[in-house]
Amino acid sequence: MQNKITELFKIKYPIIQAGMIWNSGWKLASAVSNSGGLGLLGAGSMYPDVLRQHIQKCKKATSHPFGVNVPMLYPNIEEIIQIIIEQGVKIVFTSAGNPKIHTERLKKNGIKVAHVISSVKFAAKAQEAGVDAVVAEGFEAGGHNGREETTTFTLIPMVKEKIQIPLIAAGGIATGKGMLAAMVLGADGVQIGSRFVASEESSAHINFKNKVIEAKDGDTLLTLKELAPVRLLKNKFSNDVLELYKRNPSKQDLIDLLGRARAKRGMFEGDLEDGELEIGQITGLINKIQPASKIVKEIISEFDFEKNNLKGTMF
Amino acid sequence: MQNKITELFKIKYPIIQAGMIWNSGWKLASAVSNSGGLGLLGAGSMYPDVLRQHIQKCKKATSHPFGVNVPMLYPNIEEIIQIIIEQGVKIVFTSAGNPKIHTERLKKNGIKVAHVISSVKFAAKAQEAGVDAVVAEGFEAGGHNGREETTTFTLIPMVKEKIQIPLIAAGGIATGKGMLAAMVLGADGVQIGSRFVASEESSAHINFKNKVIEAKDGDTLLTLKELAPVRLLKNKFSNDVLELYKRNPSKQDLIDLLGRARAKRGMFEGDLEDGELEIGQITGLINKIQPASKIVKEIISEFDFEKNNLKGTMF
Repeated sequence: MQNKITELFKIKYPIIQAGMIWNSGWKLASAVSNSGGLGLLGAGSMYPDVLRQHIQKCKKATSHPFGVNVPMLYPNIEEIIQIIIEQGVKIVFTSAGNPKIHTERLKKNGIKVAHVISSVKFAAKAQEAGVDAVVAEGFEAGGHNGREETTTFTLIPMVKEKIQIPLIAAGGIATGKGMLAAMVLGADGVQIGSRFVASEESSAHINFKNKVIEAKDGDTLLTLKELAPVRLLKNKFSNDVLELYKRNPSKQDLIDLLGRARAKRGMFEGDLEDGELEIGQITGLINKIQPASKIVKEIISEFDFEKNNLKGTMF
Repeated sequence: MQNKITELFKIKYPIIQAGMIWNSGWKLASAVSNSGGLGLLGAGSMYPDVLRQHIQKCKKATSHPFGVNVPMLYPNIEEIIQIIIEQGVKIVFTSAGNPKIHTERLKKNGIKVAHVISSVKFAAKAQEAGVDAVVAEGFEAGGHNGREETTTFTLIPMVKEKIQIPLIAAGGIATGKGMLAAMVLGADGVQIGSRFVASEESSAHINFKNKVIEAKDGDTLLTLKELAPVRLLKNKFSNDVLELYKRNPSKQDLIDLLGRARAKRGMFEGDLEDGELEIGQITGLINKIQPASKIVKEIISEFDFEKNNLKGTMF
């Protein structure tokens, strides 16, 4: 079966594994691509040289398409884009920045571009900038997140009304039912993050993976809105942030508390107390660590089952 | 066609019209019930005597089941429950409080009870308290809202895992596609608020209805979390609240700013500047004022079309 997203990226299933910092290296991306989805490397936590190595290893590990997620506010953005072009990567997901700046150049180099947005206005701007697809990410998503706090359930149909290019839903999706619901709301495909954090191939620390499969509803919060809103597991660090807020902090106070490398410390090094543990609300539904191939297979099998049985089993 | 919700309430379609303050009087509730859904009176903005009149008028206006939404922190709660029993109302939706206190008494009087929650924990407690159904309301919903900020897309499947009684989804639902998506995620029925605000029969002021159909994504915010989190349209009042927050206000400062009757002033009297305008994020998808019967018909017709065509039209 084919749809806009599988055709665009030449993949089997319209499932994109999010290019998450400290989680999405070549092992995860190639495993997802080998399973029929689209694996993304997370350039946001890689020095340019490290990214080059991950791209090269990913090419060896899969003959299927894979891509790179690039936060455009990255300090070495020029070098990163140069490496992507030089290495012949064919798919780039851009986020956190203006899609006008790099889309044309990427497309001239034969690269398909998807851009992550969290509002209708920026979806329209991304389409205008010539991107091939839009990722609409809801408030429930883990990690960095929109200021408007619009949820997946409401964002997808509102974006769908205003754009004609393919639409990928992100935020809150971890199962075949979630995928089907997102597509009923208007998405052509889904980007899945949290569930792939709890994969065997994710480069997250095992402490973090274990925390993700234990977490329940209400265990995350969106905070640090004055810097860039980010959704985290509640822990000592997030409590420290809330304590600081009680004292009416300046932006600099927040920057000082955040410090450097909090996300690495939490997700990659496994410091569950003082690290930043980025994860989505749907963590409450994730309760085992599985191979990425199993995750893709389960999602597709549940999706198919639900889709084919809707007519008979529901009001 | 029948399901758990239509059987429980003896209605044709599993669509519940939310019992919203200043919007949901006998005209709206009876119009929805006459259209095959379940209309609810919003007791939260009615003095006991006013509620009695609305119940009596509703009984005259429809021979179909209707109910009353009762916020349990209401000052005259005893009198309200007495009137409901005395008037022979057969369905009560309770919110904002402990379902243990009144459920047994209501059920002894032959009343079906649904309880509104915003977390898995309180869904389980409601089931334990013996309610007949749970309404799980996501972060995107208008008006008063949960502290956990869990969205509809993630709350529904997480609640579904933990309860066996019928589950009604609320928050972000305004269309047949939204209804179908909610049911794919695990709901047996849906509660719809914002779209019925923009109905001819809603008792909201025309200024407020017009504002609802003009609003776009990003035009609401959740605020006043220290009192009770509430989702509002952004306006002068909500800006005043944000200004006050910059000065590190005490809870009393917030209570003082809110003052009395803000919601009535905004939604019922049409003061778009200084009134409190409670509405959900899905307001961005609502663009016309229609008769309630047309709203129900459109939702069901879109729901049926999408459900029957899923198999053929989607990946």
